[in-house]
Amino acid sequence: MSVLHTLAQWAATRRADWSPTVLARAEHAFADTVACMVAGSADPVTRKTAEGLATWSGGQATLFGGTRRVDAPWAAMVNGTGAHVLEIDDNFYPALTHASAILVPALIALGEELDASGADLLDAYIVGIELHAALGRGVNRSHYFAGWHPTATVGCIGTAGACARLMKLDTGRTVAAMSLAVSMASGNKAQFGTEAKSFQCGMGAANAIIAARLGAAGLTGNPEVLEDPQGFLALYGGPAPRGWDAPLQKLDKPLALEEFGVAPKRHACCGSAHNSLDCILDLRREHGFGAGDVASVSVLVGASNKKNLRYDDPQDEFQARFSLHYNVALALLYGKVTLADFTPEAVWRPEVRELFALTTMQARAFEDEPKDPDQRPPHLVEITLKDGRVLKAQRVYARGLIQDPFDDAERADKITECCAPQLAPQDFQALLAILTNVRGLDSVRTLTALCAGKQEAA
Amino acid sequence: MSVLHTLAQWAATRRADWSPTVLARAEHAFADTVACMVAGSADPVTRKTAEGLATWSGGQATLFGGTRRVDAPWAAMVNGTGAHVLEIDDNFYPALTHASAILVPALIALGEELDASGADLLDAYIVGIELHAALGRGVNRSHYFAGWHPTATVGCIGTAGACARLMKLDTGRTVAAMSLAVSMASGNKAQFGTEAKSFQCGMGAANAIIAARLGAAGLTGNPEVLEDPQGFLALYGGPAPRGWDAPLQKLDKPLALEEFGVAPKRHACCGSAHNSLDCILDLRREHGFGAGDVASVSVLVGASNKKNLRYDDPQDEFQARFSLHYNVALALLYGKVTLADFTPEAVWRPEVRELFALTTMQARAFEDEPKDPDQRPPHLVEITLKDGRVLKAQRVYARGLIQDPFDDAERADKITECCAPQLAPQDFQALLAILTNVRGLDSVRTLTALCAGKQEAA
Repeated sequence: MSVLHTLAQWAATRRADWSPTVLARAEHAFADTVACMVAGSADPVTRKTAEGLATWSGGQATLFGGTRRVDAPWAAMVNGTGAHVLEIDDNFYPALTHASAILVPALIALGEELDASGADLLDAYIVGIELHAALGRGVNRSHYFAGWHPTATVGCIGTAGACARLMKLDTGRTVAAMSLAVSMASGNKAQFGTEAKSFQCGMGAANAIIAARLGAAGLTGNPEVLEDPQGFLALYGGPAPRGWDAPLQKLDKPLALEEFGVAPKRHACCGSAHNSLDCILDLRREHGFGAGDVASVSVLVGASNKKNLRYDDPQDEFQARFSLHYNVALALLYGKVTLADFTPEAVWRPEVRELFALTTMQARAFEDEPKDPDQRPPHLVEITLKDGRVLKAQRVYARGLIQDPFDDAERADKITECCAPQLAPQDFQALLAILTNVRGLDSVRTLTALCAGKQEAA
Repeated sequence: MSVLHTLAQWAATRRADWSPTVLARAEHAFADTVACMVAGSADPVTRKTAEGLATWSGGQATLFGGTRRVDAPWAAMVNGTGAHVLEIDDNFYPALTHASAILVPALIALGEELDASGADLLDAYIVGIELHAALGRGVNRSHYFAGWHPTATVGCIGTAGACARLMKLDTGRTVAAMSLAVSMASGNKAQFGTEAKSFQCGMGAANAIIAARLGAAGLTGNPEVLEDPQGFLALYGGPAPRGWDAPLQKLDKPLALEEFGVAPKRHACCGSAHNSLDCILDLRREHGFGAGDVASVSVLVGASNKKNLRYDDPQDEFQARFSLHYNVALALLYGKVTLADFTPEAVWRPEVRELFALTTMQARAFEDEPKDPDQRPPHLVEITLKDGRVLKAQRVYARGLIQDPFDDAERADKITECCAPQLAPQDFQALLAILTNVRGLDSVRTLTALCAGKQEAA
């Protein structure tokens, strides 16, 4: 049986008897991602994406931040761009994807056309996360290291499977949908630090819906397209991909959402910096120093993390999100990293920039890292204070992961930070209520009607 | 200046003073491709693609074979699938793309929204062909050999540039459109011999339009995305890509359409078989043997050609199009390879299948082939007859190329073979008149109105 067939059969036939833990984690991730989409809907990148598609009108799916209705792929493209553009959406480490930022916009847009319920969406989300994990484990971390953008590549294929689940396709049509999604899988890391990075997330969400609709109509592709000598593993695998022998053994044993959960973000920047930022905040809390006390900050990260954090001297807010130097300066100076720190003006604050020189970054060699993306070596931080003290900390998991999770108040705070500035007060309150009980939502259209944004709601 | 910037500046500013030779070749290729689109519009693969997109309605672009109007990307996706599905569309060797099968559907669909003239379309087509050449020469033949489908990858990027030309975008927005197209570039050869192969052509055409619309709206990507260490060359280049130093020297000096032209197809099967088929037909004509006289046929092709022709025992019409054994049998038995030979029934004719055993195929090693896709080594055919005679032939260029071109009557015959069965007689005559004078066409909408197909026109 081909790899895709194994995955599709599971996706098409798995009973929806998810555990309370898994359902709760899916609900938290779904709510966090909707909040990211609302916040990101106002970003210029998202607005330009919407404007680019403005020729094509009509449809049943909502563009967040407005009242325009469009076809599901366009909504997924725009809302998926918005979900990812502010870099506050969660990471999913077993796949090395921003799984939620592609799954949730795709499922909401398709769900509006199908009039899906909250329970339907969570079910498809859980299936999609597991498919991301199974697919991603076969090619990562090699795939990521080579320069692919797994959210857009692995993510497109896994999300097509999630869309097939939402459409209740049988195994054969799910195979077809996912095979066509392999044909459409693209996205590279040369676009990191540009507007195109978040677009690649939206593009993948749109393509996942297209692949599912075509699979449903009976269009077919090669079921062996993942393992074929001219297929996904061969072309996208990077220097040392593992293949799917081991990952398929792990499928649903246990669910990746059970074992790992997702990694929601506290800091509004590239996830590669989060362990280091949390180390610095931990040390600040413990030792009580301020930015003026610090002589140097030395950071050790993974090989791919260093590639991501390549802007030592960021020129705009896009580069700032991928700058360890910028974010370390924020942590030292303010003790937090917020959405407000990523504007064209904020990036040029002299008091922030003069701290850049404190930071040095080193990385482990790619060869020294575990091939299995489930195995995560720690990031190390060493802060030397002007008084001569040397403070050290390390983290395998940033705050927000299941090893150190947010509580309900922190989750609500993030939703408020993201949504309150964008929505009329009564819409915000109504949305907050839905996001704390997604499984009780009768129709996703009730949710999207609240995401039109302040200007239209006023 | 980045590679994309060099290409985009040329595309945005090149004067449209094309030579009569180049214009004529563009017109012939355009007409040939429209004919392929009309023929392919009735194919089940094309119909399923259209059905998959049926949820999304409205728009100004025509689905060939019907009266439905849709948004330009959907029309390009369906009509681009139709252009390629029957394997009778032309090849373009400098890029190793089916350049016309992605360019023409994209430009027609976008042109309907813009109400473009025939002269506009030919201008954008000529620019697009040159961009295909410049891009493809940087990564091929290595890219193709690795297993990428250049029509869909290289083709998407070059076609985005052609769409930008049709929209009259400036250099900066053309750079953006092409950079976004790199983000969207995908398509693999594991799908050859399946329905997804031709879909990949339609997908690339759709994505080219999307990239151009987004670039026009001001969305941007990395202008160095082709040469970036995590960009197109690094990720898609295969084992030994050349990079763009040499190809950029050749840009427009002379135009690839001047030096090479495109390679329209006489035979309704994979172009990798065409040199060999023409050799067999040449030898038949010269020596007058029939299938019953032949003891064996030995063929030497290129490394990638052998990978393409991988179905020694084809099970359906898709595989038959990629079977040297099947097509050699047709050439020996009937002296021609036609559209009618590729139906589920035709593939199982016993008199054809019993000839499969005559054929053996060998290939040059990839390492022994020139890196430059402009340099083409010959294919060799050796036929041993039962009377002991050994006949040999070789061809670098199949019939139809500028070294051995079709005449006007042959061009009209192909248009008739493709279109007459699909259209009402008066529509067919009107279309034929347009296709012999594309440069005189005031609006592309006049052309597409004739391509609705017989059922609606009746």
